[in-house]
Amino acid sequence: MKAFMDKDFLLSTPSAQQLYHDFAEDMPILDYHCHINPQEIAEDRRFDNITQVWLGGDHYKWRQMRSNGVDEYYITGGAPDREKFQKWAETMEKLIGNPLYHWSHLELRKYFGYQGHLCADTAEEVWNLCNKQLQERLTVRTLIKESDVRLICTTDDPIDSLEWHKVIAADDTFDVQVLPAWRPDKALNVEKPDFAEYAAKLSAVSGIEVKDFASMKAAIQNRMDYFDTLNCKVSDHALEFVMFVPATEEELDAIIQKGLSHETVSREEELKYKTAFMLFVAKEYNKRDWVMQIHFGCKRDNNAYMFQQLGPDTGFDCINNYAPSAQMADFLNCLSATNEIPKTVLYSLNPNDDAYIGTILGCFQDPSVAGKLQQGSAWWFNDHKLGMTAQMSSLANLGCFGNFIGMLTDSRSFLSYTRHDYFRRVMCALLGEWVENGEYPNDQKALEKIVKGICYNNAVNYFGFKLDTVK
Amino acid sequence: MKAFMDKDFLLSTPSAQQLYHDFAEDMPILDYHCHINPQEIAEDRRFDNITQVWLGGDHYKWRQMRSNGVDEYYITGGAPDREKFQKWAETMEKLIGNPLYHWSHLELRKYFGYQGHLCADTAEEVWNLCNKQLQERLTVRTLIKESDVRLICTTDDPIDSLEWHKVIAADDTFDVQVLPAWRPDKALNVEKPDFAEYAAKLSAVSGIEVKDFASMKAAIQNRMDYFDTLNCKVSDHALEFVMFVPATEEELDAIIQKGLSHETVSREEELKYKTAFMLFVAKEYNKRDWVMQIHFGCKRDNNAYMFQQLGPDTGFDCINNYAPSAQMADFLNCLSATNEIPKTVLYSLNPNDDAYIGTILGCFQDPSVAGKLQQGSAWWFNDHKLGMTAQMSSLANLGCFGNFIGMLTDSRSFLSYTRHDYFRRVMCALLGEWVENGEYPNDQKALEKIVKGICYNNAVNYFGFKLDTVK
Amino acid sequence: MKAFMDKDFLLSTPSAQQLYHDFAEDMPILDYHCHINPQEIAEDRRFDNITQVWLGGDHYKWRQMRSNGVDEYYITGGAPDREKFQKWAETMEKLIGNPLYHWSHLELRKYFGYQGHLCADTAEEVWNLCNKQLQERLTVRTLIKESDVRLICTTDDPIDSLEWHKVIAADDTFDVQVLPAWRPDKALNVEKPDFAEYAAKLSAVSGIEVKDFASMKAAIQNRMDYFDTLNCKVSDHALEFVMFVPATEEELDAIIQKGLSHETVSREEELKYKTAFMLFVAKEYNKRDWVMQIHFGCKRDNNAYMFQQLGPDTGFDCINNYAPSAQMADFLNCLSATNEIPKTVLYSLNPNDDAYIGTILGCFQDPSVAGKLQQGSAWWFNDHKLGMTAQMSSLANLGCFGNFIGMLTDSRSFLSYTRHDYFRRVMCALLGEWVENGEYPNDQKALEKIVKGICYNNAVNYFGFKLDTVK
Repeated sequence: MKAFMDKDFLLSTPSAQQLYHDFAEDMPILDYHCHINPQEIAEDRRFDNITQVWLGGDHYKWRQMRSNGVDEYYITGGAPDREKFQKWAETMEKLIGNPLYHWSHLELRKYFGYQGHLCADTAEEVWNLCNKQLQERLTVRTLIKESDVRLICTTDDPIDSLEWHKVIAADDTFDVQVLPAWRPDKALNVEKPDFAEYAAKLSAVSGIEVKDFASMKAAIQNRMDYFDTLNCKVSDHALEFVMFVPATEEELDAIIQKGLSHETVSREEELKYKTAFMLFVAKEYNKRDWVMQIHFGCKRDNNAYMFQQLGPDTGFDCINNYAPSAQMADFLNCLSATNEIPKTVLYSLNPNDDAYIGTILGCFQDPSVAGKLQQGSAWWFNDHKLGMTAQMSSLANLGCFGNFIGMLTDSRSFLSYTRHDYFRRVMCALLGEWVENGEYPNDQKALEKIVKGICYNNAVNYFGFKLDTVK
Repeated sequence: MKAFMDKDFLLSTPSAQQLYHDFAEDMPILDYHCHINPQEIAEDRRFDNITQVWLGGDHYKWRQMRSNGVDEYYITGGAPDREKFQKWAETMEKLIGNPLYHWSHLELRKYFGYQGHLCADTAEEVWNLCNKQLQERLTVRTLIKESDVRLICTTDDPIDSLEWHKVIAADDTFDVQVLPAWRPDKALNVEKPDFAEYAAKLSAVSGIEVKDFASMKAAIQNRMDYFDTLNCKVSDHALEFVMFVPATEEELDAIIQKGLSHETVSREEELKYKTAFMLFVAKEYNKRDWVMQIHFGCKRDNNAYMFQQLGPDTGFDCINNYAPSAQMADFLNCLSATNEIPKTVLYSLNPNDDAYIGTILGCFQDPSVAGKLQQGSAWWFNDHKLGMTAQMSSLANLGCFGNFIGMLTDSRSFLSYTRHDYFRRVMCALLGEWVENGEYPNDQKALEKIVKGICYNNAVNYFGFKLDTVK
Repeated sequence: MKAFMDKDFLLSTPSAQQLYHDFAEDMPILDYHCHINPQEIAEDRRFDNITQVWLGGDHYKWRQMRSNGVDEYYITGGAPDREKFQKWAETMEKLIGNPLYHWSHLELRKYFGYQGHLCADTAEEVWNLCNKQLQERLTVRTLIKESDVRLICTTDDPIDSLEWHKVIAADDTFDVQVLPAWRPDKALNVEKPDFAEYAAKLSAVSGIEVKDFASMKAAIQNRMDYFDTLNCKVSDHALEFVMFVPATEEELDAIIQKGLSHETVSREEELKYKTAFMLFVAKEYNKRDWVMQIHFGCKRDNNAYMFQQLGPDTGFDCINNYAPSAQMADFLNCLSATNEIPKTVLYSLNPNDDAYIGTILGCFQDPSVAGKLQQGSAWWFNDHKLGMTAQMSSLANLGCFGNFIGMLTDSRSFLSYTRHDYFRRVMCALLGEWVENGEYPNDQKALEKIVKGICYNNAVNYFGFKLDTVK
């Protein structure tokens, strides 16, 4: 029996251990997608206690507490932080097989040096240990530096002033790049009640009045120019699915007019507008050499009752299993016709989509960059050993695995960098198994290149950041 | 090489063996869902031979005999029982990797003490051994008691008199609770040709004339009251998928009128009626503290030619892969708006649905009970090592596995209780692997609680039966 | 650590090794489905170099080179063969986990005796070794004989003259049967622009003017008669999905008229015509005792830009995830109503379809032949260890695995026969694991029958070729 989460955690073979410890463990982190707040980096936020860091905004943990019958008072409500922590510790005991069990303990080990396991009985000692370190030592910047993060892309709305990015860039005492990433969901969601209000803000910020599809595009371009000045290299989109419903410019003008005047936009109209919007921004990304990330397959805010109380991103999202592969292929085909596919990373929340995504990528690769189209790493609900292994196995079966750009953090917490460690262990376990079974030669030079590539170097080369690869 | 199906069958690690033998093996069985006939319990039926028990009504076995080219004469036809058994034994040899191979041998070991393997050559000795025991020792009640079953929920139509449940309850010589479970499929299936006939029977039994949606609801409530008097705690539904197509009361009245007068009900109308019916009964279950089970993803009676000869439930059903997760989420959201979601167990016949179900559960949990929404154990075509492992892994990845209510029998035979043994072995193999790999600490106290919970105690607490948990 | 791809490659247990080396390794090959050119067999083609064989037409390899950012000049363009080979060798290094990595090395070992691994550094020695053998020893017929292939079914259009099949049949110096297989895609695709042109050719060849559905059927029957004279036993169809949209004869005549006069055929009309066409040919197959193969789940020629340059089958296809199981069941049910289901093999490109296919098979088996309905082996994008293991596990869980007809080659190259070796290793690994774990008894007689059956004998019996089974 292996010890609980020791240095060889998840590394199931000698080859896995060797690959991880020799090539993966010490690689830096390129955090090209997360949801952390740049203000907290700029101000180097401190935390009073572990509940603030762990349970302050992590809806993954909230969901499990709710699954365990914990009252909302101890989750997002007014209970004292110590009591909330106890409820979390009690829930932990039942989370056998859940990635939160592993992530939490990886964080306890890496940042707090705790080697035991958290449960109701040990909650008090963990609480004291963590809080001491948070109060004495661990600030936001310390956490980033201890994780050896070299670059962070936040997630930003086109109308954002990006003021904190400027503050950080001007701060000589902190050498980690913190760049904006472009996420124009609100300009895309023409069917939402707040579209008109958003368009008004976009008009104001860009100085271009959004009144039809042409002016929407002009306003978007204006803000892209601004993001470019702050070295933005990455976009991101939350789509239900990658749709392809072509429309004429006249239709698009009529649809956007409806959105601007709070008229009901039909499902068909919504899909037409979104198709056109996505085609437009994709071509812009291609011109600007930005990467297009698309996260799809999610149905959000399903619990109307809780949404009224807590708002979005509070743990009430699920997988949407409608995502026709034919439309995804047609969308990319349309861009391909004029040779305008940007570098693209596709992520589905539905693990059943792995295989078709892998086959679609292969239809549109081109010589401009190795692995121009990528399937993103296992995401959100799939961000665990089985999900990661399935995504990487599928990718390896269908594509050129050596070009994979690897893990994204997708984090809302500064402790989440240990998920890269988790990912690297799973990746080395997979590669190690292949070597161990004689499915790939034990060619250390080739393996080193592959492992370091997937950990860090491939992403550096792919996104075109000002970073050096690591030999 | 491990011996064929010995005491450590499926228990792939020392931890798995320890967990199973120490905590799982001796737990009693709570059979909260099956298709066995209460009359046979009341009358303590005896069987002449093993063909009666094994091949009398088990369409799982019939399918495999047909797959092996066996003539229907030896399956459901007039062949002598001994010849039917021979054909089954010959088929067994080719069923490598099939769960029937394992279930059959588990039954031979547990109830008949046979340690060999059944094939054409051994059929005669197995036939003689089994028949001797069936004639001398094994009755329905003996089988139930030897399996340590504490409570059985049958599956019953709202118009059922439940007479045999009363007989059993009044019988002091038999201490196993046999409760009805409510399955109102015929009241739901407004599109079926026999809906009007059924409604007439329901009117007669309830004393409430079903003529519109309001009277249908009243009649249903009337029968629920009756089921309540016999301690019913569980409902069950067979749905194509969990639909959500809202309608007005006027629309519903018009649709039910069509059903009552044998007019064609359109697909849209069918879905509207079923949505309304399910919302209604769900709210009733919530009031009465009944559990709502929904089995979906099945397309039934596909072989029209054989259906005419043999009727339903004879081995001609398949997976229906249309089941939009969005409608399932919207259905639960509608109930959630008024805080009326009952305890709910969702089972899909399509193994691809595991992940989205797991994410939908997490959107609607609440503090009324730990694990209020459950994904049911791998069911029917998925009721094998791989299917169970996939379902439990998904559940553990996405939810709080320690609250899982575990195996359902879903049986049509009194020998099928060994499937609990099969399930427990698979479950302990999974947990044991996690412990063995250092993915969960070897905390015997916590593990005992989890294993005993999933085997029995969680279901006792969840359903609210009058049963004690087992320490 | 196992040596890289030695004699026990993929054989993960002693039982797997024993089953493979004792029962599988030396079985002949029945190539019942491939895309090789009978002219090349008739003429016993020679190859100048390994690039011609490997990269001349293998779009699997082209895709991976594109994924690796290789310029089209080195793929399908005018680069010298040696340079193309170098680019392939460089790509190989990154193909860790990809089946091409294994297939390529199996071919190097079996046909060329090369024991190393191909990478940029070894490309020169591999190039020289392979070319020497190709020029001195390895012709098309040598490759077929060294692979112990006993029978080959090519893939042929109804209007094909089959002249090369006649030449081969008349050639006493070559004893491998080379039979035509019937693939009427062009007669099915009424919505395609070249339908009318094709119908004209079919009219000319059959002597029956295709002008309505009745004459289309007559022309098809005429060509089936011709294929029958050359011992055709197998058909094949490429469908998007198995559809069922019934229509009247009048509707069908109107639709075919549109196709013949280059009018637009609606999606609904297309599905109606295809349903009727498939029902018609299925009944013909049943009469003639031909096997109906259906390959579905593919969306072809997605990259319009590359299609214009390179045409079809050049590496731009993907999985189509729309395939309603209900329509597949209804299609077979319609044939079943008159007891006219032919022997049928279903292959989906979408691995998510495994389970429902397995359950549909079970609804329509009959005593005319063991395993009358089959799920075909893992195909194309799924043709790798994980895909094969998943397909066989699903089949074993849901059906009678001992009747499986096993691997299809689906090859476009004469070196691809090693994929049978790959398949047999994966199959023996799976069976060996079951034996090793005590899930099936170590009954050598039964296992020999199963292994030899799946390798060769089951297909011999199923298709009804003039071949002897191997004891």
